[in-house]
Amino acid sequence: MLVKDEAIVKPNPVKDEGAVGARMAVLIGPQEGAPNFVMRRIELDAGGCTPYHSHAWEHVVYILEGTGKLKNQSEPLDLKPGSSVLVLPNEEHQFAADPESPLVFLCTIPKR
Amino acid sequence: MLVKDEAIVKPNPVKDEGAVGARMAVLIGPQEGAPNFVMRRIELDAGGCTPYHSHAWEHVVYILEGTGKLKNQSEPLDLKPGSSVLVLPNEEHQFAADPESPLVFLCTIPKR
Repeated sequence: MLVKDEAIVKPNPVKDEGAVGARMAVLIGPQEGAPNFVMRRIELDAGGCTPYHSHAWEHVVYILEGTGKLKNQSEPLDLKPGSSVLVLPNEEHQFAADPESPLVFLCTIPKR
Repeated sequence: MLVKDEAIVKPNPVKDEGAVGARMAVLIGPQEGAPNFVMRRIELDAGGCTPYHSHAWEHVVYILEGTGKLKNQSEPLDLKPGSSVLVLPNEEHQFAADPESPLVFLCTIPKR
């Protein structure tokens, strides 16, 4: 059983191709002994985004701060504090902060 | 891919023995098509608590609002906004709001 204070969490820049103004910190994952899944905190600068991509695992997301869009080939979906999100395995997706607002969210994935 | 607005989430009272002033809403789970895990939002009134119990699955938790304690047989651990928490399978635990503060948190568990 452990409690990790936010003050000790150090986000790292996301260097994947297509990421803009994005940082990520693992909150609870393998290092903490999590058996099944990994909870990360992702911060996007105003106008920033994650890569437009897909992968074999899902995202379960909760928006903490700011506003933005979840994009794929359909109409973009609005994101705001309290929005919860499911991106299924192999769905193309991109999280984008609005031009005037950062976007901060939790993103949980299965342990791989 | 779906985005669920917080306004449509309706928490239900937690009726388990030992729960006091506790409500829970499933944000992303089987109904939304989540393949592996379930993200719930739990609200405790000031002075409220979840049952003191253990079970075969873990909790991955993020504190959204308020202050409280994570209790087991050791010293209670402080909870505040931004704290992330791991409770391992079969660990006894109880989430308790401080007497003067509600406590709101996300609690993710494996799909069963």
